[in-house]
Amino acid sequence: MWYYLALAAGVISVLFGFIQARSIQSAPAGDARMREIAAAIQEGANAYLGRQYRTIAIVGVVVVVLLGLAFQSWQQPLGFVIGAVLSGAAGFIGMKVSVQANVRTTEAAKSGLNAGLKLAFKSGAVTGMLVVGLALLGIVLYYGFLTMVMGLSLTDELEKREVIDSLVALGFGASLISIFARLGGGIFTKGADVGGDMVGKVEAGIPEDDPRNAATIADNVGDNVGDCAGMAADLFETYAVTLVATMVLGAIFFADSAYISDIMLLPLAIGGVCIITSIIGTYFVNLGPGKTDVMGALYKGLIVTGVLSVGALALVISQVLPAGFGVLDGAAAAMGLSGEITGMDLFLCGILGLVVTGLIVVITAYYTETKYRPVRSIAKASESGHGTNVIQGLAVSLESTALPALTIIAGIIATYNLAGLFGVAIATTTMLALAGMIVALDAFGPVTDNAGGIAEMAELPSEVRETTDALDAVGNTTKAVTKGYAIGSAGLGALVLFAAYSEDLKYFSARAAEGSFFSGVTVDFSIANPYVVVGLLFGGLLPFLFGGMSMMAVGRAAQSVVEEVRRQFREMPGIMKGEVKPDYGRAVDLLTQAAIKEMIVPSLLPVLSPIVLFGVILAIAGKGAAFAALGAMLLGVIVTGLFVAISMTSGGGAWDNAKKYIEDGNHGGKGSEAHKAAVTGDTVGDPYKDTAGPAVNPMIKITNIVALLLLAVLAGM
Amino acid sequence: MWYYLALAAGVISVLFGFIQARSIQSAPAGDARMREIAAAIQEGANAYLGRQYRTIAIVGVVVVVLLGLAFQSWQQPLGFVIGAVLSGAAGFIGMKVSVQANVRTTEAAKSGLNAGLKLAFKSGAVTGMLVVGLALLGIVLYYGFLTMVMGLSLTDELEKREVIDSLVALGFGASLISIFARLGGGIFTKGADVGGDMVGKVEAGIPEDDPRNAATIADNVGDNVGDCAGMAADLFETYAVTLVATMVLGAIFFADSAYISDIMLLPLAIGGVCIITSIIGTYFVNLGPGKTDVMGALYKGLIVTGVLSVGALALVISQVLPAGFGVLDGAAAAMGLSGEITGMDLFLCGILGLVVTGLIVVITAYYTETKYRPVRSIAKASESGHGTNVIQGLAVSLESTALPALTIIAGIIATYNLAGLFGVAIATTTMLALAGMIVALDAFGPVTDNAGGIAEMAELPSEVRETTDALDAVGNTTKAVTKGYAIGSAGLGALVLFAAYSEDLKYFSARAAEGSFFSGVTVDFSIANPYVVVGLLFGGLLPFLFGGMSMMAVGRAAQSVVEEVRRQFREMPGIMKGEVKPDYGRAVDLLTQAAIKEMIVPSLLPVLSPIVLFGVILAIAGKGAAFAALGAMLLGVIVTGLFVAISMTSGGGAWDNAKKYIEDGNHGGKGSEAHKAAVTGDTVGDPYKDTAGPAVNPMIKITNIVALLLLAVLAGM
Repeated sequence: MWYYLALAAGVISVLFGFIQARSIQSAPAGDARMREIAAAIQEGANAYLGRQYRTIAIVGVVVVVLLGLAFQSWQQPLGFVIGAVLSGAAGFIGMKVSVQANVRTTEAAKSGLNAGLKLAFKSGAVTGMLVVGLALLGIVLYYGFLTMVMGLSLTDELEKREVIDSLVALGFGASLISIFARLGGGIFTKGADVGGDMVGKVEAGIPEDDPRNAATIADNVGDNVGDCAGMAADLFETYAVTLVATMVLGAIFFADSAYISDIMLLPLAIGGVCIITSIIGTYFVNLGPGKTDVMGALYKGLIVTGVLSVGALALVISQVLPAGFGVLDGAAAAMGLSGEITGMDLFLCGILGLVVTGLIVVITAYYTETKYRPVRSIAKASESGHGTNVIQGLAVSLESTALPALTIIAGIIATYNLAGLFGVAIATTTMLALAGMIVALDAFGPVTDNAGGIAEMAELPSEVRETTDALDAVGNTTKAVTKGYAIGSAGLGALVLFAAYSEDLKYFSARAAEGSFFSGVTVDFSIANPYVVVGLLFGGLLPFLFGGMSMMAVGRAAQSVVEEVRRQFREMPGIMKGEVKPDYGRAVDLLTQAAIKEMIVPSLLPVLSPIVLFGVILAIAGKGAAFAALGAMLLGVIVTGLFVAISMTSGGGAWDNAKKYIEDGNHGGKGSEAHKAAVTGDTVGDPYKDTAGPAVNPMIKITNIVALLLLAVLAGM
Repeated sequence: MWYYLALAAGVISVLFGFIQARSIQSAPAGDARMREIAAAIQEGANAYLGRQYRTIAIVGVVVVVLLGLAFQSWQQPLGFVIGAVLSGAAGFIGMKVSVQANVRTTEAAKSGLNAGLKLAFKSGAVTGMLVVGLALLGIVLYYGFLTMVMGLSLTDELEKREVIDSLVALGFGASLISIFARLGGGIFTKGADVGGDMVGKVEAGIPEDDPRNAATIADNVGDNVGDCAGMAADLFETYAVTLVATMVLGAIFFADSAYISDIMLLPLAIGGVCIITSIIGTYFVNLGPGKTDVMGALYKGLIVTGVLSVGALALVISQVLPAGFGVLDGAAAAMGLSGEITGMDLFLCGILGLVVTGLIVVITAYYTETKYRPVRSIAKASESGHGTNVIQGLAVSLESTALPALTIIAGIIATYNLAGLFGVAIATTTMLALAGMIVALDAFGPVTDNAGGIAEMAELPSEVRETTDALDAVGNTTKAVTKGYAIGSAGLGALVLFAAYSEDLKYFSARAAEGSFFSGVTVDFSIANPYVVVGLLFGGLLPFLFGGMSMMAVGRAAQSVVEEVRRQFREMPGIMKGEVKPDYGRAVDLLTQAAIKEMIVPSLLPVLSPIVLFGVILAIAGKGAAFAALGAMLLGVIVTGLFVAISMTSGGGAWDNAKKYIEDGNHGGKGSEAHKAAVTGDTVGDPYKDTAGPAVNPMIKITNIVALLLLAVLAGM
């Protein structure tokens, strides 16, 4: 029954999305000038995403063929295609809704903050519910197809492997889309943003989103393809991979248990009920008349979702597990633990997952909201110049990693002590189950950002811009929250992902036929093993190298925008006088090409690194060392990636809001020297928080998934 | 015999230092104005270091008492005092020579590049030889005292432990000094530099080192207390800890071997002969007439030292080991390896240590010299503004970690395959044996930096300043090289430090009496153990938090300088007209207070973290988990610390030289918009490369040493 309930939740979620999208379309879209601008943004976003997906499709076809050859079977390639297509669809539809909502939000903002908030948040909710709805549907349907239509049995070892491998391949599809989408979108949006700011605000002295700047439309397009579609693909991937990894662990640990199919269903059921609580939560996002606390309104929705989820979780645990809250026979023994594990333990782990989510939200808010010390210290440091602004921003970004890391550490210890590795997995799953609501909070950001841009370009009264700016400032915090949440779940899930790898390894070694690849392989995962240290260091270098490559890509893309805008100013002197319209399309085209070209190499880094490391160590020191190094690499990439990602996303958000804080009239306000310094900090923070930082999360996942698939492929040799 | 040869090498090194120092003192010190400025710098540096050492002394007394109470013995506290006092002495004398050499270098620079280079390098060589000479002497004499005067036997387990613990305590003394000296000096120097630049170059529009800027003398003082004394303490510590760790490993692995005393002597002998090769190398640093390739002249000295060291190493291995290059009986078995280990294997490991050093030098030079892509890309990015300069600089800093990390990974694999963990240790020891020469290359930097400042303040002809600038640009690269080298040795030595911990743990557990602390303790170091993951994450967060704290400290110190200089400009309008001399002393005083205050908390972070982590996990999950988490923490701090440190030091060097490249007339030259952007990048790079980044190395060591001491203390319980 719970299978069908999870299925129903997925369907409801998608339906909710479509109904909300309709209601957005029926809202008034403003005057002709506004609609013209919105159309230009839509056109650019369509063109970019179309081209991005075509490029990814080429890589995808190659991967499908390789998977088919490696597995000699069609279920894994099909899983890959399902994951990839649904992830792409979630991003694409989210972007479509977002570019319709932006101009309507501008129009709604004319009648006040709450009207603007409600419309923008509605658009965010569409994206959020599509992400979790499509991800859950994809997994539920494919899992149902494999076990019910194809009749693969979870108690037959070989058939169970087929199910696991196919689900992992689905996760791989989602991951591959997401690394390209995050990175390509990130390069596009920040190339436009940084380039546009450098040449517009700094050189020409015209305000942000000024219609005379040829990069303005590209900047708005970027918000939709990067912060909306790219983010959606990222969270789709995080959600899908976490659910799949929990199912994989369940399938391994409870292999000999009578309730294996209930355990496999548990993450799907948790996902299902939390979709419902998330939908309910969206209705609580509302500003009272005369109130201006936008963040508070968003928190209200999140808190309602969180509280309802506790009840929903209790329901799921008590109903799905045969023992309810009681003792789960054999669970502790399966994980090699002493004592007993109860349903109550799993329930508490789920609650801890919610608590970790809450803490990460609070900590991120502290580091990125204008009312606390970190952002204010950056604003203050701006008074003494560009250099001190950047120094203080970097210091805040480094410091901001400590509390989230301690939260994750505490989460690991607590959940492991309650219910072993499966407890950690359930906590991570529950954490991710709120993804619909979290994505909604995030995806509303680019809509308000665009709305402000449209207000500026359509030369609407300044009150409209002030309203959209108030919404946008909150967007900086919610964007940082989502990224901290995604990477935090990766940190908490680190053990789960590694456990999937090491348990798979044990499984294959134990069952290896004489002469097969795994025959006689023993692996020493002790940190005293030099190959483990080698793997940790190699994994550790990936987020740094990847971060460096993606920052350089943004720099190059921005450079090309700067040159193009300069050229237009030079060759069309009428632009500055407002007599001639700049050629927005050329800037969009140029960035499209640059972003697509620049995303390829860094995206392939995490895909190929596990294979290369494994191959090199295999050649030097044999199978045991190679498997040890590969496993350690999976942890190494998380150990540094967690800190690199959090420092970049929180630091970037803090820089952005420090600028906003100054623009609110502090430290001299707009146009002061402090403001100029703050603009520099914001520019630096841009690729940090919207390109390099967030892309670390899919990068971590993809190395893990590739390693799992590598094991499965080698097992067939 | 080799014991006395090592002793003699130490004595020669110190004598060499004193003779060179004399020869510097006899060089002409310029006119009255120059001597006056130099005297002000000397006074400030003396005052700061005196105060710093008094503060450290208070912490030191507490530690001595705690060590005495914990060990109930005086050898460990005495070892601590020896390490601390000698480390402090090396830094203090180095600083003394440096502040005498600066003005004499200015004077020598009047007669050309080679004269300036020779004098500045002579001063660097004094510091270099004192660092390695005093460190080697300290270890050799105390080891001799323990084994020969006190007669502690290496074949008696309890007496051997006494020797080991006392040597580790010596390393702890050196480490504790070095973290304070690196950080306090770093905060002082960069507070002055950043603050002075912000208010002088950016606000008042006066050049660097302009005498009207009240922070100028403080900036020059900072070069001596931070880049000279702080760096000397850091390398002293790295050298001492590596030698001690290798001896500890030798004592453990070869416990049952007849040649244990030869093995213990091996690192000392390698240190001894390489001191001689380093001294010879210093005589090859020389520019041919009319030549200007300063870096080439320095390389010549380094290459001569490296090549001679190969021969010296062959001599040591063939003479010290009873088997010479032949099979070392029982060595492989002691380390749990199959096959045999020969003296030749150890020789090759030593050579690999030299190769790793060479590669790190070449890679760092690539990332920080003005003639290669990275620095030029930052200079190019400066054309489009402050923001793109910082973005490109950060991208370069992230990217610059990859090749050094791969070098270290390759070094670990190769040396481990040759001769197991002891092979890795010998490679690290040989790498560090060149420290005298490397420090010489580095310590010449602050002298030339000062020399330039003095030339500017004494209003000497611009040719003098050009000569010192040419020397200074090279200093940026050599400073980055030293830091990369120090942290690289920590990376290569990671396994050695961890092995010392895990072997100690095994040793104590195996010999634990019933009811004692270690009785029945078993530790699972597998990365599948959640407490290992917890330790890795906790260790991983330390360099980030530490980096954030120290950057903030620099920001605050700089802020106070900015305010003071502004106040002086405001209250004494004669300063800007050049009629009134600013109050240099107040800026120095202010920074002294700020730096001392700010260094305490971050310095205690790595000292207390291992103890806190151990205590917390012990309370939650028992002894096995606590030891596992603590061990993993030691690796975690290296896994992220390596990348954080390299990215900061290489990135900072690249930013600085990008500015110098523009000042050489590229991208618009001095005064252009690109130059302003490059100044911002340089300012950001300052605390990166001279405060936060280099302090990560002693931080890593100190967590390791504290963990080792914690084990020894617990063993007595």
